[in-house]
Amino acid sequence: MTSQIPDPEAGFALAPPFLATSSLIGRLSLCEARLQSDARWPWICLIPRRAGLVEVGELSVTDRAQLIEEAVACGAAVRAIGEATGFIVEKLNIGALGNVTPQLHVHVVGRRPGDPAWAGPVWGAGRAEPYSAAGEAAALAAARASLGL
Amino acid sequence: MTSQIPDPEAGFALAPPFLATSSLIGRLSLCEARLQSDARWPWICLIPRRAGLVEVGELSVTDRAQLIEEAVACGAAVRAIGEATGFIVEKLNIGALGNVTPQLHVHVVGRRPGDPAWAGPVWGAGRAEPYSAAGEAAALAAARASLGL
Repeated sequence: MTSQIPDPEAGFALAPPFLATSSLIGRLSLCEARLQSDARWPWICLIPRRAGLVEVGELSVTDRAQLIEEAVACGAAVRAIGEATGFIVEKLNIGALGNVTPQLHVHVVGRRPGDPAWAGPVWGAGRAEPYSAAGEAAALAAARASLGL
Repeated sequence: MTSQIPDPEAGFALAPPFLATSSLIGRLSLCEARLQSDARWPWICLIPRRAGLVEVGELSVTDRAQLIEEAVACGAAVRAIGEATGFIVEKLNIGALGNVTPQLHVHVVGRRPGDPAWAGPVWGAGRAEPYSAAGEAAALAAARASLGL
């Protein structure tokens, strides 16, 4: 007889838009961390592995504290991506919007004066520029090293 | 002889841009909560009362957990502002950007399809529309009631 410990990830599935616009970096304690497929900025998207959530407030208090820790860790990872790809991050932008893709997610984006949307937000700004294969590999490697993955 | 307990708020002062673009709702445990002076959206700005901070990661782990709790509480307050002012919130947007005003702050904004920037972000979208005196009073009262202030 197995014990009946509820699986907090039960029913979780990544919404298809994330698969189309980002690449897997790895799994943190709470979130799946993904590299946004846009070489204009070092940019990580965090998706909590909890089913059916839309707003941050729908996470438990424990998960919320973990989410902000993972966002901070991804701030360092975004700086590392920038160092690997020639974009020196001077400011971090963190955003939980979800106006287009409702599944709960948090963006962590590296910014610097003169970047393609500075000082405005990145969301909705122009068109994504794909990474080269080598650029994406370097970004993924830098993010994984920074996050200990 | 008094004990020497460090004051975590020592040296904190609100940056002048916040005074020009928002009105005090009240003080939460960590943050000053302010109503953004823009009647287009129910919108609260949270400024942690800690001196010299720019990035979320510069807060202590304890303060970070508190920050996300206050952001969630302000999500409910933003919904209450919307009910008081005729804007039914369907989605919350939370953002820590700071590209223009570096002092660490977090925006909590109520959104709905068809609002003046939907589905894009509010930051940098058009010009702020001032509240009427009655509208601002209603928004402040609703926010304070929601936050228990």
